[in-house]
Amino acid sequence: MSAVKVLLVAGTHGNELNAPWLFEKWSEQEELINSNGVSLARVIGNPDALALCRRYIERDLNRSFKAELIQSSSSNQNEVIRAKQLLNIYGPLGINPCQIAIDFHSTTSSMGTSLVVYGRRPKDLALAALIQHRIGVPIYLHEGDEIQNGFLVESWPCGLVVEIGPVPQGLIHQKIINQTKLSIEICLEEIAKIPSRENIFPENLIVHRHLQNIDYPRDSEGRTTFFIHENIQNKDWFPIKYGEPLFENLEGQIITNLSKDSIVPVFINEAAYIEKNIAMAFTKKEIWQFDSLWSEELKDFLNI
Amino acid sequence: MSAVKVLLVAGTHGNELNAPWLFEKWSEQEELINSNGVSLARVIGNPDALALCRRYIERDLNRSFKAELIQSSSSNQNEVIRAKQLLNIYGPLGINPCQIAIDFHSTTSSMGTSLVVYGRRPKDLALAALIQHRIGVPIYLHEGDEIQNGFLVESWPCGLVVEIGPVPQGLIHQKIINQTKLSIEICLEEIAKIPSRENIFPENLIVHRHLQNIDYPRDSEGRTTFFIHENIQNKDWFPIKYGEPLFENLEGQIITNLSKDSIVPVFINEAAYIEKNIAMAFTKKEIWQFDSLWSEELKDFLNI
Repeated sequence: MSAVKVLLVAGTHGNELNAPWLFEKWSEQEELINSNGVSLARVIGNPDALALCRRYIERDLNRSFKAELIQSSSSNQNEVIRAKQLLNIYGPLGINPCQIAIDFHSTTSSMGTSLVVYGRRPKDLALAALIQHRIGVPIYLHEGDEIQNGFLVESWPCGLVVEIGPVPQGLIHQKIINQTKLSIEICLEEIAKIPSRENIFPENLIVHRHLQNIDYPRDSEGRTTFFIHENIQNKDWFPIKYGEPLFENLEGQIITNLSKDSIVPVFINEAAYIEKNIAMAFTKKEIWQFDSLWSEELKDFLNI
Repeated sequence: MSAVKVLLVAGTHGNELNAPWLFEKWSEQEELINSNGVSLARVIGNPDALALCRRYIERDLNRSFKAELIQSSSSNQNEVIRAKQLLNIYGPLGINPCQIAIDFHSTTSSMGTSLVVYGRRPKDLALAALIQHRIGVPIYLHEGDEIQNGFLVESWPCGLVVEIGPVPQGLIHQKIINQTKLSIEICLEEIAKIPSRENIFPENLIVHRHLQNIDYPRDSEGRTTFFIHENIQNKDWFPIKYGEPLFENLEGQIITNLSKDSIVPVFINEAAYIEKNIAMAFTKKEIWQFDSLWSEELKDFLNI
């Protein structure tokens, strides 16, 4: 194995309990998950928030890895301090340097086991392709979003988010634990194979490319006036055609999709996104030809 | 209609958003729900907690209606102050006195639409019987629990909790909104009919009588070591026999039910109960003959 170390993060949001719970059991019993020889660091992203079972204390840690915050010496917000601390310890130039970060989340949306990739960094796409090829997970390509940014994994040279749902905040669920465990195992198996070039990269990468965030309809005071239409609740990743329902109100009025192209909604009715004015994100499903430059960059990186 | 006024409460827990959302829309549009001539007061139980989307600020409001807290002048905890305030305004001897309180909650457990009755007050049983007879809802009879007490509705001469789930904390769900609306309508229709004695009381009352709370298995540091077994997750109200699984851990060890009698679990994996050391409550299903003294007491009360 190369000198590359992988950072596994759980509890970046303190009310997403399943990955932190699994990490706790794993630390008590090292054989619980086979690391396949991959050099690892494991960390709870936001332990203060986890102790209170809240998403965050002062601001969303997973929107705090912005250059202007990290480089600023003036912000004393809990999560900005924590972001700097994580980088000082586990960042690529940190005390215990890691080159790949994988951040395990859960969601109230019916995302199944899914990956989120931020932008089009070749190494991220190559790693995501390996995991998709193994277990068929959908990939949400988050890009071009001016408001939602500063994600943890973007501060590492290579990184992915694993999102698993649906599960309410604040509880442990057998299925979510098992899906989290499986996704850790697959990630580590694939990373372990890279230096010896044993991976099988797919011919195509299927991505759901972020188009835009859609807010709940609101009144002049900012209060939501419609809810998610029953046809699409828990139907993340299912395409919606023009004219199909998105929202409904108590009088039975329906707001429909006005996009002419088929769009695919994700993160439908995620509890934590109401404050972010996001009822769902629209994506476009695209099938990309796998680019061997991506895999070459990942292989070279892991043979550092 | 008699001089009786009914207090409808939403948001006693600030992260249970569906009833508060419905109350908001109802206050903007009075014809949204027909009160059937019943004199009403509507209130958000814990507005401070609702503003932060947290269950409570300092302590659970729905465990704060204890005589020793209400009568004490020393407690400055947010929720104790709020409990006194609610009683001063809407209590039976308050400024705007109400005689019946109905408190609308949601839960992460698969409780469907259900009622909770605290103890065996005849008027509560009569009112619960009317609602059960109309829409077949199960009734959780909470009694004999020395640790969980001080519930809001116990401070009114007659009162019920309506619990609806499953729904994650912190989000609006079309189905939960509709179930809440229906349960408000049915409650008010039945209460409206009492003075003119038009109700049809059932011959039997089916209750699920509280036996005991069951905690998650924990280690010496209080951390949970097992999760709810997949067979019973989302299976509230389904009987469990001797030897059937309750919990499982990551090594596949299973903890089974050791009660010889058939028990019926409720509030399985309710997120808010982890801190209360409750993984589920065991109940016993009982079919009681309806006692005409209950209905007479309710009728007399509503002809005050």
